[in-house]
Amino acid sequence: MSEQTLTIESPILNRNERLAQQLRERFRASGTYVVNVLSSPGSGKTSTILATNERLRDRYRAAVIEGDIASDVDAQTMKEAGLPAVQINTGGLCHLEGNVISQAVDALDAGVGLEHIDIIFIENVGNLVCPVDFDLGENLAVMILSVPEGDDKPVKYPGIFQHAGAQLLNKVDVAPAFDFDLDAYHSVLDELNPRAPRFAVSARTGEGMDAWCAWLAEQIEAARA
Amino acid sequence: MSEQTLTIESPILNRNERLAQQLRERFRASGTYVVNVLSSPGSGKTSTILATNERLRDRYRAAVIEGDIASDVDAQTMKEAGLPAVQINTGGLCHLEGNVISQAVDALDAGVGLEHIDIIFIENVGNLVCPVDFDLGENLAVMILSVPEGDDKPVKYPGIFQHAGAQLLNKVDVAPAFDFDLDAYHSVLDELNPRAPRFAVSARTGEGMDAWCAWLAEQIEAARA
Repeated sequence: MSEQTLTIESPILNRNERLAQQLRERFRASGTYVVNVLSSPGSGKTSTILATNERLRDRYRAAVIEGDIASDVDAQTMKEAGLPAVQINTGGLCHLEGNVISQAVDALDAGVGLEHIDIIFIENVGNLVCPVDFDLGENLAVMILSVPEGDDKPVKYPGIFQHAGAQLLNKVDVAPAFDFDLDAYHSVLDELNPRAPRFAVSARTGEGMDAWCAWLAEQIEAARA
Repeated sequence: MSEQTLTIESPILNRNERLAQQLRERFRASGTYVVNVLSSPGSGKTSTILATNERLRDRYRAAVIEGDIASDVDAQTMKEAGLPAVQINTGGLCHLEGNVISQAVDALDAGVGLEHIDIIFIENVGNLVCPVDFDLGENLAVMILSVPEGDDKPVKYPGIFQHAGAQLLNKVDVAPAFDFDLDAYHSVLDELNPRAPRFAVSARTGEGMDAWCAWLAEQIEAARA
């Protein structure tokens, strides 16, 4: 015997559809574009949001909803960068759901006023599995994979790569230190999700960030048109 | 307004305790030491298992249970390295549970015979949240954090770092390319989990692997005594 495969039924968790729809209408009414940021822990969600905001802040006012199991270190970081931030601590929950996003949006609305917020970045819990099933009313789900995680992640976690409307490959500045097969990465994504644009970036050095931000600005303008 | 914190109740999922106990008895009877390997996607679970097996295979016969959302790439890798491997595809599930481990152990038992297996490495789904709540009857849960993920992960995902019986810090060979604050990492773990030993390793270069393997061999011998 060398290898066998067992398959478990996957649970279907589409219970927050109605809440997501309400959120979507609310965001449309206030002219707020919402980006749901997905990745593993440590792929660079926080630094990518900050680098994106740096390039877009002259045109758009941003706010952040931070989802973490525990701590408020990310919200503190956002605050230091001048961004309004609501921290959600999920306890043991591995994803964000519509109900807590509604509460966070209420908090932003009471604070700076939703109509003054052009973009909300939702930094989801670092997780390649659970967030996929929960629509948060966002305009765009962006998937961040970082080079150190390896090129096989789209094969092993296909759902989230299929789901994303844009793919960022982050930490490309350290690519020489890792055996990341770019061709393998692209050929799997060509199969899983050929339409979502892909950007190779480094949130730390800024490499590739202009192209990603230009594309994101186009999406924001298209949503307003 | 700058920051607010919302807290969600964490669900308690201790329903597979009984199965875990049965597994534990079964492993004890066959003299099999079981290591539940936990980490984010891409932290190096597969390569750490392989590097560990390389150093211990003269003394112990190992087998692997691979948990993934999809694909059998890890089981294929194990097979190529000469390790009996059972692949579990969880579909959408973000962790392994006792029931599928029982099936996988049945498969290993039918194949090579459980009494001929000294160590089973269970490579859990890459996830820092869900696996914590599911006892798989293991002797040891080992947590692998990799340098590129950042030193703030123990603060943001405290449950899994608290739970682990040993902490590996992997990919230390690329540490110069990252801003990983070792002091911060250690001081948070001093609070969260002062007793679990910590090993700084590189599964790729082999750095630190001997110390980790020597410690693991001691645990195996202690469990047999």
